[in-house]
Amino acid sequence: MELLKSTAESIKRIDEGFYTVAQKRLDNLTKPPGSLGRLEEFARKLVAITENKSPMLDKKVVFTFAGDHGITEEGVSAYPREVTQQMVLNFLRGGAGINVLARHAGAEVIVVDIGVDHDFGELDGLVVMKAVRGTKNFAKGPAMSREEAVRCIEVGITLADGYAKKGYKIFGTGEMGIGNTTPSSAIAAVLTGMSVAEVTGKGTGISDASLMNKIKVIEQGIQLNSPDPSDALDVLAKVGGAEIGGIAGLILGAAARKLPVIIDGFISTAGALIAYCLEPKTRDYLFAAHRSVEVGHKAMLDKMGLHPILDLNMRLGEGTGAALAILLIEAGLKIYREMATFGEAGVSDEIIN
Amino acid sequence: MELLKSTAESIKRIDEGFYTVAQKRLDNLTKPPGSLGRLEEFARKLVAITENKSPMLDKKVVFTFAGDHGITEEGVSAYPREVTQQMVLNFLRGGAGINVLARHAGAEVIVVDIGVDHDFGELDGLVVMKAVRGTKNFAKGPAMSREEAVRCIEVGITLADGYAKKGYKIFGTGEMGIGNTTPSSAIAAVLTGMSVAEVTGKGTGISDASLMNKIKVIEQGIQLNSPDPSDALDVLAKVGGAEIGGIAGLILGAAARKLPVIIDGFISTAGALIAYCLEPKTRDYLFAAHRSVEVGHKAMLDKMGLHPILDLNMRLGEGTGAALAILLIEAGLKIYREMATFGEAGVSDEIIN
Repeated sequence: MELLKSTAESIKRIDEGFYTVAQKRLDNLTKPPGSLGRLEEFARKLVAITENKSPMLDKKVVFTFAGDHGITEEGVSAYPREVTQQMVLNFLRGGAGINVLARHAGAEVIVVDIGVDHDFGELDGLVVMKAVRGTKNFAKGPAMSREEAVRCIEVGITLADGYAKKGYKIFGTGEMGIGNTTPSSAIAAVLTGMSVAEVTGKGTGISDASLMNKIKVIEQGIQLNSPDPSDALDVLAKVGGAEIGGIAGLILGAAARKLPVIIDGFISTAGALIAYCLEPKTRDYLFAAHRSVEVGHKAMLDKMGLHPILDLNMRLGEGTGAALAILLIEAGLKIYREMATFGEAGVSDEIIN
Repeated sequence: MELLKSTAESIKRIDEGFYTVAQKRLDNLTKPPGSLGRLEEFARKLVAITENKSPMLDKKVVFTFAGDHGITEEGVSAYPREVTQQMVLNFLRGGAGINVLARHAGAEVIVVDIGVDHDFGELDGLVVMKAVRGTKNFAKGPAMSREEAVRCIEVGITLADGYAKKGYKIFGTGEMGIGNTTPSSAIAAVLTGMSVAEVTGKGTGISDASLMNKIKVIEQGIQLNSPDPSDALDVLAKVGGAEIGGIAGLILGAAARKLPVIIDGFISTAGALIAYCLEPKTRDYLFAAHRSVEVGHKAMLDKMGLHPILDLNMRLGEGTGAALAILLIEAGLKIYREMATFGEAGVSDEIIN
């Protein structure tokens, strides 16, 4: 708890004066002012986050946190629980969606076992930092204890610290956990105040009947556990998940070290919302990668005032949206760093109309 | 005219049977069916366009066509006409937005002088295929003769043929021409049937008063020249521009050779609409890179039934949106080519709900 507390307390608002510094350069590049739209926004934000007039994104990493969920006993997912551990092995062999897209974006993938109910032993490339061995079924009681929830968050903070020290310049979030749209919808409902039905979707692809069951299970779990909406740790513990806590911690740790974080889709955004409720200043350090198909996603992004970069009907998770968004954020930074100014290029910047 | 005619006649619909072939592989990859959304659509479309079950996009090129516009006499642009030639030099030195973003996407930039009113002489990297030396002011008469319009299109076809033979696998379109949102809005109005006011925006950034003037100038030009909406060549000649014709030709040539084309923003889409009206089957070969800020863009995309990939408030042109979209289309292809199947990865594909 000490690490969580000291990390959250050390997070500062970004200095918006850096926006002005960055925009001055952007407006002097050989293009009409503002004509590169959100690419310019990305550059400004990176300058302000890093407090560096010419930042670089040379080392990039997506963290894919894996955990199991007791709530799968209630038939909330299209896939059997074993798929979580099978997919961890697939990540380590480089065959999953996140591996392909991270390679495309020039980013590494770090797979973190934060809560899988399986002993992998020592495996090349797997970071084992188990905070729990799967959560408990929150339809029958709390998913985790408060201490376990703190442990999940502190795993994320520890990773952020370690990778910041190793010189990584931007983090993407990702996750794998069969059943994990269910705790994410529960978190969305509790922390946005919307109804469970409004923020619950079909996850990896359940039937209409299973969706009705999923909504009922979440409603019952919230009623049974009464998570306190003003206490994000309580919400994470009672209806959350280990990987969601890990993502929240990664964000807190990154914000404390002035590093940008790209949040992936629905589940990652539930993690970001936990971090935001623990310390709203984390928002300044976040990029929202994409708008997921999952219905509750927009409500959580709106709550944080984040506007997604991509909208490609994706709903895979793992960090796949974050990997794609890295390419666009980096595009904004390259524009800022590499384009010629009017003076350098001998192009007229006279505006006549 | 013979080249244009034979090219258009050789274009075939894509064989949608290839969609099924591609989707079968996509559904066997380690992810829930359809969960990569539009990335899967891009892969299917590339397979169908190329009639290749495992296409590659190893050689990529963005063509930036440059031309001047007589209509700038009417005060329709924020920038002086000389900026067209100054920007051509900036492209050749690698300092413009398109250079930065094409490098980021691993694509070459080919700068084509198809209608600049300036003699560059021999310059490293500049392709000089002048069809006109600037268009005429279409507020006072036709912008080009019908023969000149055909010449512009045939320049594009010739480039498509040449770069197809050199082994390039995907083309992006781009343009530079001070004043060229004005002919693009004229084309949009004539070919979509919408009013000039509905499809005319502020281009690189003119004032409200200048926008009113721009709308009036376009309305007068259309009234004076009476372009025939059922004859796209007539529209291109009377109210179009050289680079717009070049883009139309590039698309016709690419479609004839079964190569995909990514169309950039507003002006490129006017070129695509000319190609589409000459031969609607070209549509099958097109990807729409992004939704431009320019108001008439959506109407033209809707007319062709194209849905843009990105929406980043961009309005620079040059091919910048196309370069970014290459990254996402390539992401879809890499997913298709590189992800493990359920069988390879030992992951359960049993769907239980």
